[in-house]
Amino acid sequence: MEIINDINQMQKRAEALRNSGKTIAFVPTMGYLHDGHLALMRAGRELGDVLVVSIFVNPAQFGPKEDFGSYPRDLERDSALCRQVGVDIIFHPAAEAIYPRGFQTHIEVENLSRGLCGDFRPGHFRGVATVVAKLFNIIKPHAAVFGEKDCQQLAVIRRMTADLNLDVQIVGYPTVRETDGLAMSSRNTFLSAAERQSALSLSRSLEQAQQMVREGERAPGRIEQAVRETISREPATEIEYVRVCHPESLSELKWVEDSTLLALAVRVGKTRLIDNRIITTKPGRE
Amino acid sequence: MEIINDINQMQKRAEALRNSGKTIAFVPTMGYLHDGHLALMRAGRELGDVLVVSIFVNPAQFGPKEDFGSYPRDLERDSALCRQVGVDIIFHPAAEAIYPRGFQTHIEVENLSRGLCGDFRPGHFRGVATVVAKLFNIIKPHAAVFGEKDCQQLAVIRRMTADLNLDVQIVGYPTVRETDGLAMSSRNTFLSAAERQSALSLSRSLEQAQQMVREGERAPGRIEQAVRETISREPATEIEYVRVCHPESLSELKWVEDSTLLALAVRVGKTRLIDNRIITTKPGRE
Repeated sequence: MEIINDINQMQKRAEALRNSGKTIAFVPTMGYLHDGHLALMRAGRELGDVLVVSIFVNPAQFGPKEDFGSYPRDLERDSALCRQVGVDIIFHPAAEAIYPRGFQTHIEVENLSRGLCGDFRPGHFRGVATVVAKLFNIIKPHAAVFGEKDCQQLAVIRRMTADLNLDVQIVGYPTVRETDGLAMSSRNTFLSAAERQSALSLSRSLEQAQQMVREGERAPGRIEQAVRETISREPATEIEYVRVCHPESLSELKWVEDSTLLALAVRVGKTRLIDNRIITTKPGRE
Repeated sequence: MEIINDINQMQKRAEALRNSGKTIAFVPTMGYLHDGHLALMRAGRELGDVLVVSIFVNPAQFGPKEDFGSYPRDLERDSALCRQVGVDIIFHPAAEAIYPRGFQTHIEVENLSRGLCGDFRPGHFRGVATVVAKLFNIIKPHAAVFGEKDCQQLAVIRRMTADLNLDVQIVGYPTVRETDGLAMSSRNTFLSAAERQSALSLSRSLEQAQQMVREGERAPGRIEQAVRETISREPATEIEYVRVCHPESLSELKWVEDSTLLALAVRVGKTRLIDNRIITTKPGRE
């Protein structure tokens, strides 16, 4: 396994790999890897001859009051994990190389960047779209794997890829959970034991929503309200949003249909967590 | 020579060409080709094994009151010219394929899109940057040639290419002029004989500015004023801007330096014309 820091070196390597007939699979990460990332990497391992993982805490997707500075980092541990999973190249560029002096180009996926997390993190999806396009141009992957936990991010990236004719297959990978149901996230490391207990209400409330639909409920408002109540009952929780919406357009729905997305964001103490689930109306498919 | 309309077909062809070791040179155009375009194509012919020319009148770079509908088109004549110059592939997509339903992604090169033409054509450079990135992703060129007549467009594209790590060599090509000095443009076809006469003041005034600098003038304001007076003297001219600026950042200058850009836009009758020239302070270099 190799660690490449230099953008030109990575881009030249990628071009040489493609010219020699190799396919490239890519998993972008912000590091501090957990089992969710490792699952994406194992999926990536099957998708190409060469597996490239980027580790880059992208300043452009953090707001001025967000946790860019305190976001957890541990390259040594990350490298060992990547090696275990069979990663070929870690791409680990410096922020000043990704955003040099005079940088001024931004990619905006307009509608999908609004609503949900976009309302609470202005500029976040612009930062995500721009850096993912840059990484695609540097790493030249045939396929890239993204976690479904970041459902709005995945929708934004699918749309950008189609709209800009990026020749990359976008693969979504199901959310990996702890045994108690908590969606894996690098930010879980910030949770105290009590907060961790409260945070279980996120996945529990999603399960409860699926149960309501299974029993015939179809009104988004009533489902959202039940989820809100379940989460609010727990100490130290503060809901940003709970939303029933279309899984691709993310637009609001009048009635729950089959394969409806239920997405939520909650602050637990100082830690912002997101989770989501696809709700089905058909028995036996959940 | 081949004409490809389908985006997927073009992209697959480009990928196959690259995989077989061929280099691709690309000249994007809006068609209605003139000798300026043909010069870009001849330059492109030298830059790659395969020469691709796109002909696409891009609706996204025209404002609601601009001449998208009346922009001249003649694919048959264009094809014949391309064949003469040794073009291998004309890419000629439909607007509905480039901008399908639900399209919502835009690329903004922030600072360079402001000022000069950007002030008079809001959204124009966003439309240019977005379509050029799309064409790069579809045609996958190693090198692309752009005319220096569109000096702000060239600056925007150079910046976008660097900022998004697009692996394309951007080549600028000097403005081609009619024997009387008028910069070649598809829009020249709209000029009446009298307007055409007035339009000669654009290149003449640029020459006059170089003469002033040669004789020691260094103040942008006095140079701009002299150019304005020369152009205003002609019937049917209406100046949008005359600006002395830095050739890459396009920022205003306090004093004329060597290799300063002088750019202008003028309406002659109903036709909007642009022209520019690099002014040198060193004798014998103009």
